[in-house]
Amino acid sequence: MTTFSERTIKSESIYKGKIIDVSIATIEREDGERAKRELVKHPGAVAIIAVTDENKLVLVEQYRKALEKPIIEIPAGKIEVGEEPIKTAYRELKEETGYSTTRLTEIASFYTSPGFADEIVYLYEASSLEEGEQQLDDGEYVHVVTKSLAECEELIKEQRIHDAKTMYAIQYLKLKEN
Amino acid sequence: MTTFSERTIKSESIYKGKIIDVSIATIEREDGERAKRELVKHPGAVAIIAVTDENKLVLVEQYRKALEKPIIEIPAGKIEVGEEPIKTAYRELKEETGYSTTRLTEIASFYTSPGFADEIVYLYEASSLEEGEQQLDDGEYVHVVTKSLAECEELIKEQRIHDAKTMYAIQYLKLKEN
Repeated sequence: MTTFSERTIKSESIYKGKIIDVSIATIEREDGERAKRELVKHPGAVAIIAVTDENKLVLVEQYRKALEKPIIEIPAGKIEVGEEPIKTAYRELKEETGYSTTRLTEIASFYTSPGFADEIVYLYEASSLEEGEQQLDDGEYVHVVTKSLAECEELIKEQRIHDAKTMYAIQYLKLKEN
Repeated sequence: MTTFSERTIKSESIYKGKIIDVSIATIEREDGERAKRELVKHPGAVAIIAVTDENKLVLVEQYRKALEKPIIEIPAGKIEVGEEPIKTAYRELKEETGYSTTRLTEIASFYTSPGFADEIVYLYEASSLEEGEQQLDDGEYVHVVTKSLAECEELIKEQRIHDAKTMYAIQYLKLKEN
């Protein structure tokens, strides 16, 4: 599959931000053809499947400016520079939801938008939960809710749950139930 | 949940590209606090779950510059301006894989990266397939493969299948099998 590689001829930095970097790469394929690629660099994220003793999934509702609306998602957070993803996961679960766990297991990872971005999400499952207080960062407004799988499916129909990682997590729990 | 909205105070356009637009919004929450949001606009995409008569999932392998490697995904494509998503889906399935279908059904939609992007993927399932010839755009290099669910799970372990929409689609098919 020699036509598969895309060698970078030139890379132009457009923007270096707090969360994303944007660049335009001029690439050359092995047949000599050139093209442009719009690329977003992202540090990656973690997300956590946490189910309470009452068999409810821990979720957070927050405003997503990119969508101009609030949606309900599993707890998640951006990986800090140099931080091991699993450490981010322990930290974000505790900070965003107040719940903590003694053991997280990685169950999957996936690129969210391979057409233009390198964002990867590492998905963990918490083995047991202890309730506690949220510890939100300054300016974080996150509302914690817990929902059964049937309630989650209703929220998907209403498009209040409407993102890939959360919908993947709900399918994962349904498959586990079977 | 009055703290949920984020009013735009200022929006600075950073880049307007062929696929993505990038801007920085200054937002104000209802408590008066201000913050910046890095935002990527994307026209949205479709993806298609197409299973052959031999019960194999139709997949495409292509180089993803954002990841600097090829990965194997379900067929997908960006929605053109003004195009109905389902039309994009009929077109992309045929062009990318050669397979065509008389009926697509929307089974889900999801935002891929709600933290910074508005990209939405509409996921369709093809009800029956007819084999034909690929009709790739100039400069598209897409290698079609068909795989059983067991083979797909191996490819996930090898991280050759490694994106959210494809892994969601595989879970969907597993749930359907049960």
